[in-house]
Amino acid sequence: MPTLSLAICGKTRRMKYELYYWPGIQGRGEFVRLTFEDAGAEYVDVARLTRKEGGGVEKLMRLMRGDGALRPFAPPFVKVGDFIVAQTANILHYLAPRLGLAPKDEQQRVYAHQLQLTIADMVVEAHDTHHPIAVGLYYEDQRKEAKARAAHFIEDRLSLFLGYFEDVLERSGGKHFLRSHSYVDLSMFQLLSGLDYAFPNAMARARPKLARLSALQERVAKRPRIAAYLASDRRIPFNESGIFRHYPELDAKPRVGRRG
Amino acid sequence: MPTLSLAICGKTRRMKYELYYWPGIQGRGEFVRLTFEDAGAEYVDVARLTRKEGGGVEKLMRLMRGDGALRPFAPPFVKVGDFIVAQTANILHYLAPRLGLAPKDEQQRVYAHQLQLTIADMVVEAHDTHHPIAVGLYYEDQRKEAKARAAHFIEDRLSLFLGYFEDVLERSGGKHFLRSHSYVDLSMFQLLSGLDYAFPNAMARARPKLARLSALQERVAKRPRIAAYLASDRRIPFNESGIFRHYPELDAKPRVGRRG
Repeated sequence: MPTLSLAICGKTRRMKYELYYWPGIQGRGEFVRLTFEDAGAEYVDVARLTRKEGGGVEKLMRLMRGDGALRPFAPPFVKVGDFIVAQTANILHYLAPRLGLAPKDEQQRVYAHQLQLTIADMVVEAHDTHHPIAVGLYYEDQRKEAKARAAHFIEDRLSLFLGYFEDVLERSGGKHFLRSHSYVDLSMFQLLSGLDYAFPNAMARARPKLARLSALQERVAKRPRIAAYLASDRRIPFNESGIFRHYPELDAKPRVGRRG
Repeated sequence: MPTLSLAICGKTRRMKYELYYWPGIQGRGEFVRLTFEDAGAEYVDVARLTRKEGGGVEKLMRLMRGDGALRPFAPPFVKVGDFIVAQTANILHYLAPRLGLAPKDEQQRVYAHQLQLTIADMVVEAHDTHHPIAVGLYYEDQRKEAKARAAHFIEDRLSLFLGYFEDVLERSGGKHFLRSHSYVDLSMFQLLSGLDYAFPNAMARARPKLARLSALQERVAKRPRIAAYLASDRRIPFNESGIFRHYPELDAKPRVGRRG
């Protein structure tokens, strides 16, 4: 994997990042993975390594339950030297400037973070379509309520959020959310890809009004490092243990041709 | 109201902040209000002013739907000169250093923000106890599902989140979440006060394990500017239109004395 040289205070040093996230799902960790991958940063996905390789879920649990002053509440978190940073949007706000994926201007950075937090809000709502009652229960034990919540999500929330993102993308020139490519574009790619996976029918219906977002999603997928990542086994496939789950009964009905 | 003098780059200037949030509820706006109040900052709660006074909800809606480049997705947002910053945790991350309520050290600021985002996560879950199916439906139309979600919240999530906060508060010395008083302490006061209002029985049961959080909550309430604010009509009472709602059927059963 290529390494990244960072110039900090005149010194150039190689940083090695440790990502801690549940193995087996993309989940919220994927927003961080995409940023590392696009930057060509040297990072280790610790919980996906074996114990012999110095990794494993146990190592993640140890940091989370450990007695360090910076004990995080939940994965993902990233270790940079002795410093641990948690909360997905916070991780990106902290890392992206160091990886060349955030604007230099402070107000633009605040705006980028605001967009990322709005993406995070939509991620919570997408997750809760299949877990409206409790994260501690199986989907099968809250399927009826999931159908009700998913119907409202598809009817009201999907177009509200994506309509907003399409609008602010247009306002910023239509190509990037900020003046140039940034981690927000990567996160939007992930959000849209997840929604495509979970709600293909609903997304097919929404697409005609999302021309700019769709073009951005395609452009991100073709970025050389992202394309290589998506084709690699580092990219975990979407599945029904993650945030974006494809349960056909939660999706909109397929569009049918006109009858008669 | 006292004004705040800010020293930025050697220049001292008075800032006037405009807060935009729904009038009539504390909601997420309250986290911002508490920070302004504790700092003695000069701020205007725009949507609570009349149209004659230059405020009103219309003004909030105009900025949200307007054609500005920084159109926010939802309130609260704060206008500082021409700059608009949205998303509660982002607002605090941006403002608190300017108001003397955030640490100077970058890693400490990142940690403060991480705690604030974890508070925000719990706020979402507290909200969704009364709206598990859709924000667009009345509580009465999702009461059965609300009972199920609230039971899981009280049983699993409340102690998980508050146990975490109690633990990290202890790790940081027990008095403040950071090295000294900060906006995170204020936000924790608000979170605990909201939970007390919504779930008095559940909170009474949880209290014995939350000695440090309880002491922090009391200390914050006694801070002179906060005490004055809480006694003023600027503090909107908790009510059943906000995030923290008291529906007795969603709370734990009251503790009863031992029988026999």
